[in-house]
Amino acid sequence: MTARGTLYLVPNGLDVGTTDVEADLGERLPLGTLRVAARLGHWVCENAKTTRAFLKRVDAVCALAGPLQQIAIVELPRPPKGRPDIAAFDGERLLAPALAGSDLGLISEAGLPAVADPGARLVAAAHGAGVRVVALPGASSITLAVAASGLNGQSFAFVGYLPIEAEGRNARIRELESTSRRLLQTQVMIETPYRNPVLLGALLAQLHPATVLSVSVGLTLANESTRSDSIERWRMSPGTLPADVPAVFSFLAR
Amino acid sequence: MTARGTLYLVPNGLDVGTTDVEADLGERLPLGTLRVAARLGHWVCENAKTTRAFLKRVDAVCALAGPLQQIAIVELPRPPKGRPDIAAFDGERLLAPALAGSDLGLISEAGLPAVADPGARLVAAAHGAGVRVVALPGASSITLAVAASGLNGQSFAFVGYLPIEAEGRNARIRELESTSRRLLQTQVMIETPYRNPVLLGALLAQLHPATVLSVSVGLTLANESTRSDSIERWRMSPGTLPADVPAVFSFLAR
Repeated sequence: MTARGTLYLVPNGLDVGTTDVEADLGERLPLGTLRVAARLGHWVCENAKTTRAFLKRVDAVCALAGPLQQIAIVELPRPPKGRPDIAAFDGERLLAPALAGSDLGLISEAGLPAVADPGARLVAAAHGAGVRVVALPGASSITLAVAASGLNGQSFAFVGYLPIEAEGRNARIRELESTSRRLLQTQVMIETPYRNPVLLGALLAQLHPATVLSVSVGLTLANESTRSDSIERWRMSPGTLPADVPAVFSFLAR
Repeated sequence: MTARGTLYLVPNGLDVGTTDVEADLGERLPLGTLRVAARLGHWVCENAKTTRAFLKRVDAVCALAGPLQQIAIVELPRPPKGRPDIAAFDGERLLAPALAGSDLGLISEAGLPAVADPGARLVAAAHGAGVRVVALPGASSITLAVAASGLNGQSFAFVGYLPIEAEGRNARIRELESTSRRLLQTQVMIETPYRNPVLLGALLAQLHPATVLSVSVGLTLANESTRSDSIERWRMSPGTLPADVPAVFSFLAR
């Protein structure tokens, strides 16, 4: 049996798709992570084009081991958001380089792959096939948002995206608030940036006035901000959320 | 009114207290994070001694702005594990440098402060006092473990420490498994390293044979490993967990 390669889970910056994207990646990812990324010849990703852009940014800090054109990049099958179960998935094909002995990288569009992002099925397939899995250090917007919120960081749940349709979203918000109250658990969610203002409006309308809501916008970017305040105070001055920058929403019932 | 300083949440390496601790911090933390850490003259931390050790490691990569002896380091009041509510807490005293216009760092013993670690009350006090809060990029063992587990990363709960006493711990494990099954939610927990083997034994005894358990040991260290397997297969070859390296346990009911 050939010795297997390792599947490396490579964090991306949190700045992809923002105007801050040209910042030096070395400022935002550890050198050890960049060094591993620079030597991988095989990648699985959400989007080949942005992965090539990532590798160019890596190359500016740590020279790539070979020419970019010779790096094999394969895209994950793309399921609809929140339904990772319904895309066709051929783990053996995606893992082929690792099964043949080469190290393989998995990367997503922002932050850690397989957290709030596709990729978990590939990781599960790797475990099933006896391929070693190593997650490289880098930031995830979820834990950064929990830290910056000042809410309960000893117990929190990441619940992904809420339903898009208003009635379902409102019911889900009330259900999460009741869970938060019962378990003293911070509830953390994300939204596609252009829907940030709508989600904020729904949270302000549905949550109890004493519940504390924290919104982190543009984490790790130069203009990042986190506001943590009671719903009562948010309602008095709701402000406006940008609709083109990623945000993370968390709340804790009081 | 004096302009206020910023409260920076500074990630520590995940290697503190392990034999890997002398590795270059530049390999494990982004340069941008080290640069901010190197210029801060005021810190709040869990432990002043390990914070000085952290600052020496920072200095080896980015020269500190001033001599280490002139950096003001204040410890957080130390509550018992899992009871952040019962220590005396004077936010105004801890935030004094930021209220007077200086930037202030908050750091914990490993990973991100205020996530699975003390510090959330200081962050909440900062929001209350109008002090800007910025969480700097770096790894948290919780999201790394979720990524490496291959379990559901679209929905997961970090539940902290389980009860120490066997009966309470077993009841809690069964309760978490039922939550996991109902919500399709990965449950993530940690333990003091010397109790890792006991927690593993309890999980193997209590969980359903089809539940998938993932254990990540020594994340970001050279010898790190993640095993994800059904309880049935874990029981066939449980192996032995080191009792001196941090581990993260996650499971998903099937």
